[in-house]
Amino acid sequence: MQKTTLLHEGKAKKVFLTGDSDLVIQEFKDDATAFNNKKKGTIADKGVVNNAISCKLFTMLESHGVKTHLVEKLSERDMLCRRLDIIKVEVVVRNIAAGSLVKRYGFTEGTVLDKPIVEFYLKDDDLDDPLMNESHAVALGVATLEELSVLGDRAKAINAVLREFFAQRKLKLVDFKLEFGRYHNEILLGDEISPDTCRFWDLDTNEKMDKDRFRFDLGGVEDAYGEVQRRVLEQG
Amino acid sequence: MQKTTLLHEGKAKKVFLTGDSDLVIQEFKDDATAFNNKKKGTIADKGVVNNAISCKLFTMLESHGVKTHLVEKLSERDMLCRRLDIIKVEVVVRNIAAGSLVKRYGFTEGTVLDKPIVEFYLKDDDLDDPLMNESHAVALGVATLEELSVLGDRAKAINAVLREFFAQRKLKLVDFKLEFGRYHNEILLGDEISPDTCRFWDLDTNEKMDKDRFRFDLGGVEDAYGEVQRRVLEQG
Ligand SMILES: Nc1ncnc2c1ncn2[C@@H]1O[C@H](COP(=O)(O)OP(=O)(O)O)[C@@H](O)[C@H]1O
Ligand SMILES: Nc1ncnc2c1ncn2[C@@H]1O[C@H](COP(=O)(O)OP(=O)(O)O)[C@@H](O)[C@H]1O
Ligand SMILES: [Mg+2]
Ligand SMILES: [Mg+2]
Repeated sequence: MQKTTLLHEGKAKKVFLTGDSDLVIQEFKDDATAFNNKKKGTIADKGVVNNAISCKLFTMLESHGVKTHLVEKLSERDMLCRRLDIIKVEVVVRNIAAGSLVKRYGFTEGTVLDKPIVEFYLKDDDLDDPLMNESHAVALGVATLEELSVLGDRAKAINAVLREFFAQRKLKLVDFKLEFGRYHNEILLGDEISPDTCRFWDLDTNEKMDKDRFRFDLGGVEDAYGEVQRRVLEQG
Repeated sequence: MQKTTLLHEGKAKKVFLTGDSDLVIQEFKDDATAFNNKKKGTIADKGVVNNAISCKLFTMLESHGVKTHLVEKLSERDMLCRRLDIIKVEVVVRNIAAGSLVKRYGFTEGTVLDKPIVEFYLKDDDLDDPLMNESHAVALGVATLEELSVLGDRAKAINAVLREFFAQRKLKLVDFKLEFGRYHNEILLGDEISPDTCRFWDLDTNEKMDKDRFRFDLGGVEDAYGEVQRRVLEQG
């Protein structure tokens, strides 16, 4: 499958059309941004690492009955995907308090939540991806109530699978962001799952092993991404 | 019924205990604040006007089967109420886009919403009353899922009654904020409903007739509050 027209160049990936109107190719870049583009940089080989991690996680999720856009890993940086009509809702699931949960609601970082928190954000960089609820999403026309209910249920099911997978690899899944899209009459999980879109803490040391190392200039960014890749790809 | 100890002095009201442990007296002040206390002032006779409007609206709502904390209007500024364990959730209902809906999501001011938007905000001045969803409220321990469902349903029912009431008085009910509290085994509507807590636009001219006149220094604040009072108290 060959790339034809560039459909979209985003912050972390390029999306290309292909000869098949149902398929696109996601090309993973090394570009890194944080705080909605206010901080920019690159992380060496991030594209290679995130593509490898995402392909492995999507394959693993499929084996647990989660429908994703993944068709196959084409090369180091390229993922062949079903072409989605992306739903403009970023779905965030949180197991442990960090980031905006601490800032916005005063949770102590590290607090283990009794039940996961599921959040919907409007995917709109110009508006800084604001938090919203179901009635906002419906009024904005980005999704129906039925779709939002599917998104919430899927996100919780995916969380259960991912938590267990990462726990076996000595990583705490603190929180993560998902995107979904419409494909014919289905809703599929799209985009990526990687240290760019998840918070991972080492199970023993609580060391941050994700984009927070880039966000807050903690150093060792490449090493952390590489270590997550190593643990994700190990057998078992 | 006599005031005893001052229980709480808020931005717009004082709440006093009484000889009956189930009852409090809300005393309405002329103090006005906006933008979470960053702007302060007074509006002449606001306390008298808001007490009159709130007592009339709560009485009208009771006649439509909505349970409120109102016992009786005691005097110009004093309302006798059932003492609530206030739920730390501000429930906002929106019929027309204005205020934070415009700022946060890019709605055009004045857009009539197909269905009302219901929002939950954490009632916490130190955190600037952040927007939240059900899973935040549960994790924060401020309400149960069942209570939030009651709050949402009540808010929509109250909206239907209020919209109709105000339409008959040539006022558009743009949006408003409600507070609820626990009382024995019930949840009652508490606090106040007034031009401090609602946006009203004149049906014919769209003139703002509420606290936005104070927030944005539009002038004629007292006249607007007085005119809302006149229309609310008129028979029919
Ligand atoms: N299967 C897919 N089909 C079409 N678009 C997709 C698919 N998966 C992800 N996308 C979209 O492609 C873009 C990926 O590039 P990215 O750098 O993440 O962009 P952004 O800056 O919008 O986050 C995103 O906008 C994402 O929503
Ligand atoms: N029936 C009631 N019983 C106890 N507290 C109430 C009742 N009705 C309202 N309150 C609370 O009393 C306070 C009213 O004063 P106000 O000036 O509005 O305070 P605030 O600055 O917190 O908004 C609010 O905190 C409100 O939640
Ligand atoms: Mg992206
Ligand atoms: Mg108040």
